[in-house]
Amino acid sequence: MKKEIILTGDRPTGPLHLGHYVGSLANRVELQKSCTQFVMIADVQALTDNFDNPKKIHDNVVEVVCDYLAVGIDPKMTTIFLQSMISAIPELTLYYMNLVTVARLSRNPTVKAEIKQKGMEESLPVGFFTYPINQAADITAFKATLVPVGEDQLPMIEQTNEIVRSFNRLYKKDVLVEAKALVPKVGRLSGIDGQAKMSKSLNNAIYLGDSQDDIAKKVRSMYTDPKHLRVEDPGSVEGNPVFEYLDAFGMDTEKIAELKAHYQRGGLGDMVVKKYLIEVLEHVFRPIGERRKVYAQDPGQVMGILLEGTKNAQAVAQDTLDQVQKVMYLDYVLEQ
Amino acid sequence: MKKEIILTGDRPTGPLHLGHYVGSLANRVELQKSCTQFVMIADVQALTDNFDNPKKIHDNVVEVVCDYLAVGIDPKMTTIFLQSMISAIPELTLYYMNLVTVARLSRNPTVKAEIKQKGMEESLPVGFFTYPINQAADITAFKATLVPVGEDQLPMIEQTNEIVRSFNRLYKKDVLVEAKALVPKVGRLSGIDGQAKMSKSLNNAIYLGDSQDDIAKKVRSMYTDPKHLRVEDPGSVEGNPVFEYLDAFGMDTEKIAELKAHYQRGGLGDMVVKKYLIEVLEHVFRPIGERRKVYAQDPGQVMGILLEGTKNAQAVAQDTLDQVQKVMYLDYVLEQ
Repeated sequence: MKKEIILTGDRPTGPLHLGHYVGSLANRVELQKSCTQFVMIADVQALTDNFDNPKKIHDNVVEVVCDYLAVGIDPKMTTIFLQSMISAIPELTLYYMNLVTVARLSRNPTVKAEIKQKGMEESLPVGFFTYPINQAADITAFKATLVPVGEDQLPMIEQTNEIVRSFNRLYKKDVLVEAKALVPKVGRLSGIDGQAKMSKSLNNAIYLGDSQDDIAKKVRSMYTDPKHLRVEDPGSVEGNPVFEYLDAFGMDTEKIAELKAHYQRGGLGDMVVKKYLIEVLEHVFRPIGERRKVYAQDPGQVMGILLEGTKNAQAVAQDTLDQVQKVMYLDYVLEQ
Repeated sequence: MKKEIILTGDRPTGPLHLGHYVGSLANRVELQKSCTQFVMIADVQALTDNFDNPKKIHDNVVEVVCDYLAVGIDPKMTTIFLQSMISAIPELTLYYMNLVTVARLSRNPTVKAEIKQKGMEESLPVGFFTYPINQAADITAFKATLVPVGEDQLPMIEQTNEIVRSFNRLYKKDVLVEAKALVPKVGRLSGIDGQAKMSKSLNNAIYLGDSQDDIAKKVRSMYTDPKHLRVEDPGSVEGNPVFEYLDAFGMDTEKIAELKAHYQRGGLGDMVVKKYLIEVLEHVFRPIGERRKVYAQDPGQVMGILLEGTKNAQAVAQDTLDQVQKVMYLDYVLEQ
């Protein structure tokens, strides 16, 4: 049986947090055992809405690699690479741009929603408008068969597969490979303030790089059931991020079930539950934090790991580009 | 005084004809003496509206180089190169896409006119819509200061210079260089059928590769003044391509003036004028045709010249890309 090939990654716009851990990082650590996995640091894509702050993107690259290594993404099993160093991707992007109409791009639901959210109807940069095509180049360069995405990103995979089918039909050879979306079972993790999404910009995140003290402090300040005013009052578990985090990170499901029942019938104080959550998080994230600290002290080694992966990724993407150029009669060779 | 740097070129969609010779090739032979000149075979750009026929583009690459060499574009003075082999161009294109809005591209008069002409409002490919940005990458990759273009292409130079100014302002360094348009004094050459434009698709062209017999045959079939029915009738010189060609290619201006006067007062047959035009064209194009035949017999040598130029062009464009990536904090280096 053929192994699945996974392409996934992150925009290096800030350090990674527990939301990333639950939503993707933990899955990658599992998937690398059975699949060929490429994890891309999407610095060029990050520039599409940070082109006025390239230093921020640059500085976060090494941080994100530290996060990866700390959680257990293993460079022996996973190719970690930097998008900006894969010149085959822009080349594929330009070729694919001939296969997609402006009308089709304008109808992309993901792009439409993001344009609206960012309020940039009139000032929409071309790079943002066309990023589904750039993403198709990322995916197809590695002949990925599985792409982990949220529900809201499904139209991006559809756009990629349309390009794959158009290309293979037009050039009469199955050079490119269609990808399937892998939608994670676990949804988004709420922020410590109870908002639906943990995010740097909402300032409600616990980072993989946070110290145990910081984590404890953040947990103690967490939003809970606002109606649970006195210990003896019954409290709500639904929409209570403290219990959500226990479900996400705790192993002792029996104890968690007991705590929930107790909280719901009244008589259990928020601080008791939070204290237990601090223990649970410490169990999972203390070793991660300690590994992260070691890596962060040696950025040269970390960049070395990234560049080694990038070298592998360059070879794979170049091989795809060679095949693409061959069917497009663009396979010129420069004698050295 | 700093030498001007010229970027110019052709889409390899067919063999070059006398219209190209008058409009651009003859100028290039002159300009290479005083300027640093890059001549690009724009195969990737040609694919934006020929993506379903890449073999045609491929086959015309060597033909166009033969045309260049035959007319006297000298690879010792001019860098002739192939666009698809310059991977810095797609990289620059993607970066520049962040600096241009969709609204701005939609207002480009050249693109608007071409979309209308090709009747592809709804089915407009993204690659065609965004080609002004791709062209800005071509021009800036070589830090061109002069770009020969027709009047209708002036908005493309304006778009390029907007990108140059945005980039330099945003990244606080004058990395990119603005270009001036060089609009040739000689306009378009009419077709042999009297239509305003000589072109392959109108089937009214005399090619640089045509034999002397073919040229003579085409001249004899040329459109003249349709009201000039009998030799003794007065004929019109205006809108008469036979006289237009004499003006474009003849050296003996006195004799041409006499012929015009005679034709206008009546008593001069079309065949006499055409016979003289055949002589004039033979004088200019026989040596070109003979050189072309020699090159065409050795496509390996011709491709060698193209690849040698391409190697030079790669180094120049890579140097620009390095400077661009440096100010964008994307200057990662892969240790070998």
